[in-house]
Parts: sequence; structure tokens; C-alpha cells
Amino acid sequence: MKRVMLKVAYDGTDYCGWQRQNNGITIQQVLEDELSRMLKEEIQVLGCSRTDAGVHSMGNLCVFDTETKVPADKISYALNQRLPEDVSVMESLEVPAGFHPRKWDSIKTYEYTIYNGRMRNPIYRRYTCFHYGRLDVEAMQAAAGYLVGEHDFASFCSAGSTAENTFRTIYSCTVMKEDDLIRIRISGSGFLYNMVRIIAGTLMKIGGGQWKPDRMRRIIAACDRQEAGPTAPPEGLCLMEIELEDPPFEY
Amino acid sequence: MKRVMLKVAYDGTDYCGWQRQNNGITIQQVLEDELSRMLKEEIQVLGCSRTDAGVHSMGNLCVFDTETKVPADKISYALNQRLPEDVSVMESLEVPAGFHPRKWDSIKTYEYTIYNGRMRNPIYRRYTCFHYGRLDVEAMQAAAGYLVGEHDFASFCSAGSTAENTFRTIYSCTVMKEDDLIRIRISGSGFLYNMVRIIAGTLMKIGGGQWKPDRMRRIIAACDRQEAGPTAPPEGLCLMEIELEDPPFEY
Repeated sequence: MKRVMLKVAYDGTDYCGWQRQNNGITIQQVLEDELSRMLKEEIQVLGCSRTDAGVHSMGNLCVFDTETKVPADKISYALNQRLPEDVSVMESLEVPAGFHPRKWDSIKTYEYTIYNGRMRNPIYRRYTCFHYGRLDVEAMQAAAGYLVGEHDFASFCSAGSTAENTFRTIYSCTVMKEDDLIRIRISGSGFLYNMVRIIAGTLMKIGGGQWKPDRMRRIIAACDRQEAGPTAPPEGLCLMEIELEDPPFEY
Repeated sequence: MKRVMLKVAYDGTDYCGWQRQNNGITIQQVLEDELSRMLKEEIQVLGCSRTDAGVHSMGNLCVFDTETKVPADKISYALNQRLPEDVSVMESLEVPAGFHPRKWDSIKTYEYTIYNGRMRNPIYRRYTCFHYGRLDVEAMQAAAGYLVGEHDFASFCSAGSTAENTFRTIYSCTVMKEDDLIRIRISGSGFLYNMVRIIAGTLMKIGGGQWKPDRMRRIIAACDRQEAGPTAPPEGLCLMEIELEDPPFEY
């Protein structure tokens, strides 16, 4: 028996998110089904970040236990032959028994990308949120600065969250513009349910001039979901990286 | 009667290219069908660049004649309501009677994007060509330099071309790397059939070390398709812009 960790990239457009559920196909289900078929044993996958329906990933992590003799680092290649084209394992490796990336300290980095053009653009439609009105990137960056540090982020947590503790630490939040694309890049110790999308929706309100940048400070202090902006749509969001802090193995 | 020009963006993944044909759906056909239905007259569209099956565009140009009273600049908005999500008109404007962008001097800019990673990546699959082996970007850039200027590009023209004159002028060709993505950006007065894809295929041979950069000079001089590299796959190619030289209108 060994425990294998996978780094998984996916285009979330056609999936009901990460976690297995009854009313639609999910990333977890695709991985479990193909692993079970390939390894000829029933495989259960433990995820690290439960991304929502329509959200993408460049490097979500998960682990599973297996009796296979296939070397752990070869599993990625074999599995990619079987996975659909919108899911791919970027890396596979053996980790210590019982290791669970969700329970290990990590730095998670997300990117939320806004296409701020005049007309919808087919090339950007799958991986960005289309926002028509001109956005002021400097105002967005000024507001983003208030998020950095340890705060109670209850204002940025959707109803339906099971989190008991709404304190999180944000290490950085930058807003970059490149032609018609605006990227919000945010790294933190962890994120509440819909937190990055609510931050993106709030920054769009500020970029659009409806709210001033320093309103972000008041929104954080309020600890009230009603004070923040709307939850931005999922297609703009991508989980870029989960960096484990001092993991007991090299990856 | 007026002549209207459209600037068209599309995700070419699910189309048999620009030009109307019998065995598959094309961009020209989608535009003609929706314009005809919307304007209630039979519309014929004259294209500027006949992109191949699977090739994308951020700004192909085309014109058509119409009796409609709808102002030309409003046609883009109305048409986008009807077009599928993988085709969008970025701009529409009235141009002088008889104006044909294909017959007007222009600078065309293409980008060919290579995803040079270890594993296939779902996020990049639609708009890049996946190349596994490490590519030397400096060698590619050195080779790209030989393409600039006026040359007989017969070595970079697929069989089946109807071009009588294979001389073209390349204004610039740069190779840029950003993480795992390599972008070949090329601007010129015009391009032969498959020319950018053959240039990309040749640059990949050079980047992979099979050929030295100065072999590009010999390939150009040979005027023989057999001397150049393979035609790179269509998904990496995007027509970025067609800049008309001193057009008789503002756009």
C-alpha cells in the first residue's frame, strides 16, 4: 500500500466543480473512475481544494491510497492517456502514509481574470469574466492592499459555508493590466467559500467607480456578507498553485 | 445600399476555417446566415484572410453590401446577440462602396503560441500547440531574424497554393517566452498558404536543436517546400490584427 499525490490541472467549464455529487460530473469523479479502472481496485481521492462549478485549476492537489506496483511517478503518464482532454495530471509522486494536503499548511494562489473589452471575445470566453465598463486598475490595486494580512473575512464568505473560523491570512493581492485583460492574483493561507470570487466582485465595483478604494477597509471590518460586492462568475477564476510549506518530500 | 466592414474574432476550434465550403461549417457561412436572417436580405461576405480549419482570429476583416437602414456601427451589437459564443464581431463600420480589405495594402500580424511543458495542460489546449521537448528560445529568435525583409518564401508555401508570386515582405518576427508559453509574433505584408504554420514548424526544429539557426537562411534560399520544417498544427495560430495602410476612413 502506498499513498500517491497528484497535481491536477483542469478546464472547469464543463464540470460541476471538484467534489463528487449526484447531479453532475465532477473532477473528483473522473479521477476516481479512471484510476479505479486503470489500477483495478476501488480508488478514493482526497482533495485539497474544492473548486466550484466552472472554476479552473493549474495545480490542485489530491492524494489516494493504492496497492499498485506501478511507480508513483509513472501514474501521471498512464492516467493522462485515459483522462478527457479537459483534465490532466501534471505530476504524480509518492508521499508518506496518511499525508493529506488539505491538512498541511500551504500557500494557495488564485488568479481571477477579467476581460475588460468593449465586445465579448470568443478567445477569452472560457477563462475570463467579461466586464464591459472601463475599470480603474489603480483604484483596484489600492483597495486590494487592504486585504493583505490576517483578518476576519466573514464579509467575503458565502452563506452555506461550514467554516467555523473566518480568519484567514492573505500574503499578497496584486492587480495587473495587460491590454484588455486585468488579472487579480491573490495568495493566502486559505480561502473561505467563494472568497476569491467575492473579492473579485468587490474589486470590480471599486474599479468601476461605484465605490471608493478605502471602502474595502469598512467592508472587511463589517464582517457582513451584505457589505461586500457580488460573487463574480466562476469562469474567471483559476487555482494557480498550492505550495505546501516544508513538505516531508520533494515535489 | 452601403458597404459595411466587420472586424471578426473567433475561436476556430469547431470550424472548418473561414471560407464557405460543402463539408463543414465555416465562419463565413455563420456570418452570412445570421446577417441574412437579421437584415432580411441575402448577404454575401467578402473576407480578407482565409484562415484554415482550427485557426483563431482576434481581428479578421470582411465587408458586405446591404440595403439596411440600421446604422453600420450598430450592426455589431445586434449581430453579436445572434452569433454563437465562439464568433463575435468586435467592430462594424461603413466603408466606401467597392472597398475590399483583401485588395488594400495592409500589415497582417499573426501569433503562433507553443505550450512547452512536460504534460499536456487543459487550460492551454485550445489556443496553443503542445510541444514536449525543451525549446531554445534564443536559437529560435536568431533564426527568426533571417525571415525579416522581402524574400521569395516558396519554401514556406504548402502545395495547393494558387499564389503566382511567392515574394512577401516580413516586417518583424519575434519569439518571446513567458513561463511555459513561447509566442512567435510575425507581421508582414501578406502570407502564403500555411506560411506561418510552416515557419512555426521550422522554428520548432531549430528550437529543439535538430537544426542550427543559420539553416533558416539556406531554407529561404532553396525555394523548396521540402527544405523547411513541418506545418505546425492549427490550434496554436491566431490572426491578431489586420492593419490597413492609410484607409479611406477611420477605424
